[in-house]
Amino acid sequence: MEHHDAYPYSESPKHFCGIAGIFSKKEINIPEKLFYALYSLQHRGQESCGIAYRKHNHITTYKDLGMVTTVLSHYLKEDHPSHAGIGHVRYSTHGGSKIENAQPLVATCNKGDIALAHNGNISNSGALQSELFKEGSIFQTTTDTELLLHLIARSKKAAFLDSLKEVLNMVEGAFSIVMIYNDKLIAVRDPYGFRPLVMGEKDGTTVFASETCALDIYGITDMREVKPGELIVVDKESTVSLSYADPGKYRRKAHCIFELIYFARPDSRLFGYSVHEIRKKMGQCLYSIDKNPGELVIPVPDSGNSAAQGYAIASKLPYEQGLTRNHYTGRTFIQPTKAMREFGVKMKLHPVKEAIKGKKLTVVDDSLVRGTTSKTLVKLLKDSGAKEVHLRLSSPEIKFPCFFGIDIPTRKELISNRLSPEGIAKEIGADSVSFLPLEQLKKCVKNSEDFCFACFSGEYPVDIQQAEKLQEKEK
Amino acid sequence: MEHHDAYPYSESPKHFCGIAGIFSKKEINIPEKLFYALYSLQHRGQESCGIAYRKHNHITTYKDLGMVTTVLSHYLKEDHPSHAGIGHVRYSTHGGSKIENAQPLVATCNKGDIALAHNGNISNSGALQSELFKEGSIFQTTTDTELLLHLIARSKKAAFLDSLKEVLNMVEGAFSIVMIYNDKLIAVRDPYGFRPLVMGEKDGTTVFASETCALDIYGITDMREVKPGELIVVDKESTVSLSYADPGKYRRKAHCIFELIYFARPDSRLFGYSVHEIRKKMGQCLYSIDKNPGELVIPVPDSGNSAAQGYAIASKLPYEQGLTRNHYTGRTFIQPTKAMREFGVKMKLHPVKEAIKGKKLTVVDDSLVRGTTSKTLVKLLKDSGAKEVHLRLSSPEIKFPCFFGIDIPTRKELISNRLSPEGIAKEIGADSVSFLPLEQLKKCVKNSEDFCFACFSGEYPVDIQQAEKLQEKEK
Amino acid sequence: MEHHDAYPYSESPKHFCGIAGIFSKKEINIPEKLFYALYSLQHRGQESCGIAYRKHNHITTYKDLGMVTTVLSHYLKEDHPSHAGIGHVRYSTHGGSKIENAQPLVATCNKGDIALAHNGNISNSGALQSELFKEGSIFQTTTDTELLLHLIARSKKAAFLDSLKEVLNMVEGAFSIVMIYNDKLIAVRDPYGFRPLVMGEKDGTTVFASETCALDIYGITDMREVKPGELIVVDKESTVSLSYADPGKYRRKAHCIFELIYFARPDSRLFGYSVHEIRKKMGQCLYSIDKNPGELVIPVPDSGNSAAQGYAIASKLPYEQGLTRNHYTGRTFIQPTKAMREFGVKMKLHPVKEAIKGKKLTVVDDSLVRGTTSKTLVKLLKDSGAKEVHLRLSSPEIKFPCFFGIDIPTRKELISNRLSPEGIAKEIGADSVSFLPLEQLKKCVKNSEDFCFACFSGEYPVDIQQAEKLQEKEK
Amino acid sequence: MEHHDAYPYSESPKHFCGIAGIFSKKEINIPEKLFYALYSLQHRGQESCGIAYRKHNHITTYKDLGMVTTVLSHYLKEDHPSHAGIGHVRYSTHGGSKIENAQPLVATCNKGDIALAHNGNISNSGALQSELFKEGSIFQTTTDTELLLHLIARSKKAAFLDSLKEVLNMVEGAFSIVMIYNDKLIAVRDPYGFRPLVMGEKDGTTVFASETCALDIYGITDMREVKPGELIVVDKESTVSLSYADPGKYRRKAHCIFELIYFARPDSRLFGYSVHEIRKKMGQCLYSIDKNPGELVIPVPDSGNSAAQGYAIASKLPYEQGLTRNHYTGRTFIQPTKAMREFGVKMKLHPVKEAIKGKKLTVVDDSLVRGTTSKTLVKLLKDSGAKEVHLRLSSPEIKFPCFFGIDIPTRKELISNRLSPEGIAKEIGADSVSFLPLEQLKKCVKNSEDFCFACFSGEYPVDIQQAEKLQEKEK
Repeated sequence: MEHHDAYPYSESPKHFCGIAGIFSKKEINIPEKLFYALYSLQHRGQESCGIAYRKHNHITTYKDLGMVTTVLSHYLKEDHPSHAGIGHVRYSTHGGSKIENAQPLVATCNKGDIALAHNGNISNSGALQSELFKEGSIFQTTTDTELLLHLIARSKKAAFLDSLKEVLNMVEGAFSIVMIYNDKLIAVRDPYGFRPLVMGEKDGTTVFASETCALDIYGITDMREVKPGELIVVDKESTVSLSYADPGKYRRKAHCIFELIYFARPDSRLFGYSVHEIRKKMGQCLYSIDKNPGELVIPVPDSGNSAAQGYAIASKLPYEQGLTRNHYTGRTFIQPTKAMREFGVKMKLHPVKEAIKGKKLTVVDDSLVRGTTSKTLVKLLKDSGAKEVHLRLSSPEIKFPCFFGIDIPTRKELISNRLSPEGIAKEIGADSVSFLPLEQLKKCVKNSEDFCFACFSGEYPVDIQQAEKLQEKEK
Repeated sequence: MEHHDAYPYSESPKHFCGIAGIFSKKEINIPEKLFYALYSLQHRGQESCGIAYRKHNHITTYKDLGMVTTVLSHYLKEDHPSHAGIGHVRYSTHGGSKIENAQPLVATCNKGDIALAHNGNISNSGALQSELFKEGSIFQTTTDTELLLHLIARSKKAAFLDSLKEVLNMVEGAFSIVMIYNDKLIAVRDPYGFRPLVMGEKDGTTVFASETCALDIYGITDMREVKPGELIVVDKESTVSLSYADPGKYRRKAHCIFELIYFARPDSRLFGYSVHEIRKKMGQCLYSIDKNPGELVIPVPDSGNSAAQGYAIASKLPYEQGLTRNHYTGRTFIQPTKAMREFGVKMKLHPVKEAIKGKKLTVVDDSLVRGTTSKTLVKLLKDSGAKEVHLRLSSPEIKFPCFFGIDIPTRKELISNRLSPEGIAKEIGADSVSFLPLEQLKKCVKNSEDFCFACFSGEYPVDIQQAEKLQEKEK
Repeated sequence: MEHHDAYPYSESPKHFCGIAGIFSKKEINIPEKLFYALYSLQHRGQESCGIAYRKHNHITTYKDLGMVTTVLSHYLKEDHPSHAGIGHVRYSTHGGSKIENAQPLVATCNKGDIALAHNGNISNSGALQSELFKEGSIFQTTTDTELLLHLIARSKKAAFLDSLKEVLNMVEGAFSIVMIYNDKLIAVRDPYGFRPLVMGEKDGTTVFASETCALDIYGITDMREVKPGELIVVDKESTVSLSYADPGKYRRKAHCIFELIYFARPDSRLFGYSVHEIRKKMGQCLYSIDKNPGELVIPVPDSGNSAAQGYAIASKLPYEQGLTRNHYTGRTFIQPTKAMREFGVKMKLHPVKEAIKGKKLTVVDDSLVRGTTSKTLVKLLKDSGAKEVHLRLSSPEIKFPCFFGIDIPTRKELISNRLSPEGIAKEIGADSVSFLPLEQLKKCVKNSEDFCFACFSGEYPVDIQQAEKLQEKEK
Repeated sequence: MEHHDAYPYSESPKHFCGIAGIFSKKEINIPEKLFYALYSLQHRGQESCGIAYRKHNHITTYKDLGMVTTVLSHYLKEDHPSHAGIGHVRYSTHGGSKIENAQPLVATCNKGDIALAHNGNISNSGALQSELFKEGSIFQTTTDTELLLHLIARSKKAAFLDSLKEVLNMVEGAFSIVMIYNDKLIAVRDPYGFRPLVMGEKDGTTVFASETCALDIYGITDMREVKPGELIVVDKESTVSLSYADPGKYRRKAHCIFELIYFARPDSRLFGYSVHEIRKKMGQCLYSIDKNPGELVIPVPDSGNSAAQGYAIASKLPYEQGLTRNHYTGRTFIQPTKAMREFGVKMKLHPVKEAIKGKKLTVVDDSLVRGTTSKTLVKLLKDSGAKEVHLRLSSPEIKFPCFFGIDIPTRKELISNRLSPEGIAKEIGADSVSFLPLEQLKKCVKNSEDFCFACFSGEYPVDIQQAEKLQEKEK
């Protein structure tokens, strides 16, 4: 599967954002430093990106629709010395791009100026927003980020940190947050640890980012996860770690398993696992239960790569990139004609006929959502001479919505709610389709109790009644 | 003088915005219609412009930094059928352009979705914002427009219109407003009538705009002013006019005399006067008391044109455009090199040497603020051979700040607070400088008691204690 | 009338280009210096602009569609030290903008690298191009500039200057040229002196430009015209002036009278005359023969300004700007909808109703071409209450095409070929229309034998048989 | 290795262009159709792209710097019905992008209007250009394409096709060409067949393209190579194939082996071979002679993928993508700061530490040019814990320049001219480096006598004396 872009060609749920924050004891060109992190996190969101940093006691923001290189290149021609800044890449939602929703958001309130960038989804935002509406709040965006700013401003606590802690105990769901407040850089992770957030240090500079790949680019080796329920405040004097969450209330972790299955970059390490290695393991598991392995393993690039490699190693079957991917999609390309829009997956994935002709193919992808692009893909492969196409997904059947930051279609649209694997195979024209069973997936991670598998199992780690109602109403 | 742009070359206070609203009984291409009005109001603000209109029960916004033709041309390639929309042009402030401040602002609150565009200045915004801060509101812009949205949302009145009326009685100062709420277009003018707002009708379409020039472009002849303290609600069924203001509280009008002196376009009619005619009259008055009229009347283009023509007609002196103005300044031009920034007024105004050589010039402009560009101008004229330069301003000496929407520098920077006309003449190198005395200016309008002359007299029509404190603090 | 742009609203022939060249003994930021000149010449062409200058023994070119401030601002952020450069602004032709036609053109040939910018029209280009076609030349643009480069390259003369002189004696018609060749800046004017070209010096820097307004901006006072038939070569060692033209062949000058009537900026001095002063004189002449002067003189801004002032001074009638012009047309604005295109002149010119109501108007413009926009204009004025509209043109009736650089419509489209002044008045709805008779116009200049009046008289200073045939064929 | 872009991170020679041409019996939206082909050929050039097509008997061109989706998206919003068009993608050269060099080039000459797009390199261009210079030709670009247009125009043959054939026998070297002339689409391939060119037909539409991947996207199955020395003319009536080349002169083919090694897309079929399959074979050969295969095969993505897969299959070693590639480089990104430029390969390639830690790696890439980026890469891998790094190149040592369209550095810069494989290993820090020996490479293709291996062997199929001299002089 693939991170959402102009030519959706692969089956996968969509995701929200990537965040980064930097604090330096010496003044450095913060926007340039943020650029490296955001560029490394680009796979987490291509719709818009932005930065906010402190300059002469004010917070300066620069954000626009577009990818990191496009939005920031021009801005980076000038030097912007600063101590602290945060950045954000945002995922391209269906409904059209709104510059208003680009982050970081900056607001002035009774506590002062705050810049905030957020990755996740507040599952009780509906109730909280209703409350705020009643009290007369106005919303200029449709982001949870604005909700967080409202709540901080509303807090009766005098001290900013006390307000923040109060708010962090009000909101439920998934949130990894970086903020600038006065001369401080603040990072927070929700008590369940749904979304990743890592921190690293090097030469007096502290960096927070959604994934380790954004720390690697600085050559940072001294790094750790921000812990679930941890709040870290960095300023010139110190780096202070607090535990803000009520220990009675939060008794478990709930790392999003989909970060490992699909969202994160293969070279990142999240939740204690190497993304590439865990995917390979999923591929190996997939083989171990496969009653009908084909003759040739091919991945759906790039989302199926690591799992396919794991499958190939375990099965000793040959591995080939039987599908070539065209990466040259400019950000501005929004298929101007109807004919082009209908081209869809054919613009992106191209079968290597000679490699697949006459072969029984084991095609490995990470997940299956609607089944529509897989149907096109299977047809492409068959038209190119594949003798058999066996689709293997390195995750279980997706049957339930996510309230913690993944954009999964409604239940009706999820093919696994309509059809059995056999039914799916028939519908998409594959010779067989099989999924990694949930119990197998759980075995891939040592501490499966620390993960959220709700999109597969429907067992939510948090009471999502409200969120569910809200979603129903919206749809 | 001139409306603020890349090459400030003339002495004048700066101004804030222009607004427009359109309601049509039939669905029409509202963005295109708004274009005409905003294009006509471009002189009231060149920093940013925007529109908001209802499409499928949602409010769609389109705004950006830049001038009307640049921002909207591309958008207008598609048809956008709608019943109602509002638009805004925003003045270029010194501190740098912020897309966040572009209007209209759109917010969702307990009353529903509201789009609002505003021209003016809330003089008690400081107190109101403090109150809102205390209650936990967040501000994402630095506009009074956001304040208005907050207050409407906060109102405990159940009905939207009741809330709006309540808010309009809370805010003080200058405001001409257009709004979209549900299927209604709403227009409001403050009880003093500081800023202009006119309405017109033609063929089932109702148009509101800051100046009549924006109605003329539609060929509308049926027009009137929105009255001070009037609130007009237009929908498919009716156009309802309400008087929202407490008649006990507001006992006078306070039209901004500077709209007539400088801001409005010469072909507009405001406050019952033709702008061109009243400026001509100011020029005539200026002559009537001039003890030393020169040999040739030249205007500082374009701000001094009408007054200079009045002066010339009254004096029977020849009138010539002894200064040529280069209008080809692109919006994006922000003098990339230091050398270019220093060129300043020389980039814009060019003396016609042959016209002025050896002549005693009467140079007519509308007002004098800091005196710096006038100094350059006088030098240009003298270097070009002018025998004498007599600067005549068609307004009195500006000595006081404005709290109702004009961006006048601090008292210290106002040259008339430092120097007498003779002192100014000496400082800027002119042979004489004289102003239109306040009593003469008052005679130019029949109903001078209905105008605000506070920037000249310091007599504010509204208690501006709070506003003054706020301003002091900011500076 | 007006220099061609997005909203053509005024009657006037169109024109081609403006050129500039700079040579400095010390290395300076040539592109920045060229900017000032081109910005001052923007009225001569708004379609595209460009510069070429020598950097490290290579010629660097930077050009694009758009106005000077837009095209060059970004480029000027960096310093580009150089000794010599040339620049060009190009007029917006009807057929659509072609980046390929933007100048300066740069070519490599047997003589080396040459950059060339050209203002004018080669009247025997058809014959010369046919010849070149026969010999196998290819043309990548539709400019005379490319023709000149071809001819220079073809010359059998060994020395570049000899080639150039040979070519200058082959081409006929109007050409003012600036070139870079090796370390030299070269300027040339055709033997008739059709198009203006001036040179000035200050502090070791030599500047050539189409008009003096582009020298004034540098504060240059030491200036003169490049003489008809003069070729000037500037390098570090010297400034050499040559007379390249065969004195037997060229026995007269033929300055384009339309430069004085309309093209040049009022503050420029061309052909020995102040543009503003000569236009005032035309206005005075116009009055002197006017049997029916009205009550109020109003110009069609900005093209009628100076003449209207002359008329007002002579007649002692009041002068008022009864038409306001909206200058805020962005370069990119190309009326996206049909409705907008039809708005035409109404987007640009706005009557000041109060000034003109009930008045007998003398409306002064520079010239009348097709009569279509004048018709709209007269209607606007009448609709605004004008009692009578008397249109006065400060030039004679245009009846003949121009082969020397002015874009005059075909004979059929010229209203003066169809109708008498009385007929025109009837067609456009004016109460009267009158032109400045040719003999009067000739009296305005002392040396009328040195001017080309061909568009009025049909008496061409050059044999234009070929050019005429070519034009016929094209139409 | 990689196709040249903003972050060069891989060792490979650079290449020039991709071309496409379309002829349809019915009028269709030719620019849209060209879009698909050019998008598929984007890997052959990212600097600029352009199209030219016939519209109302004129040739319309649209080209700009940038990638296909960026340049053409906006243009494609309108329908452009036509019968015939050609397109081009151009490689990004070092010296900076020149819009002047973008193709197709269009010229008018004695034969009429011609549009031409070209892939390859004329090896005797120096001599031919000298000749043209002598005769007085001017060159406005630095492309061979302009040379071809000049020669066609110069030809004394009356008929266009005769001229073209004459010219095709004058030029030497590599050229695949598509042209529009009148209502015809013409395609040509040089007699040696250096560069690929294929044609296909479907439903009355004929398509030419550099690679089959650009025909696959239309679903064309009826395709063949344009033969070396073949000239094909397509119009409404017929598709005519001619053999223009003197059979006595051209006795061999000389397909560029580097098209198979690196340039072409894996899913293309060129010179009778599947690109992916032949690369796999090279990888297999590479293993067959490898005395020290490691424990894990990793490719340098994406250029080493297919060969690495072949190596893994042959060796039965596990295959993993131990290097992640960041594809999100916007076209406009030109590393604004020095710090960013120095980041180089680190911006693009990211080691998957867990996969490679403690392993003896066999790293497969296609070729080695300068060795600089490989050095960085090896360091990255070692720093990430690789126990040993054995670099395997699926091509022989590059020691000689190419005169047929590949941009290979000078001999001095080629690392294989300085060092033995052992020396290279030492310099770049690898544990070993080995190349695919030439004789092995030759065995990978059945008909090795039909290929050009000159960059490895120095044995050029064409007399390149002139070209060599020219190149020497330039460097």
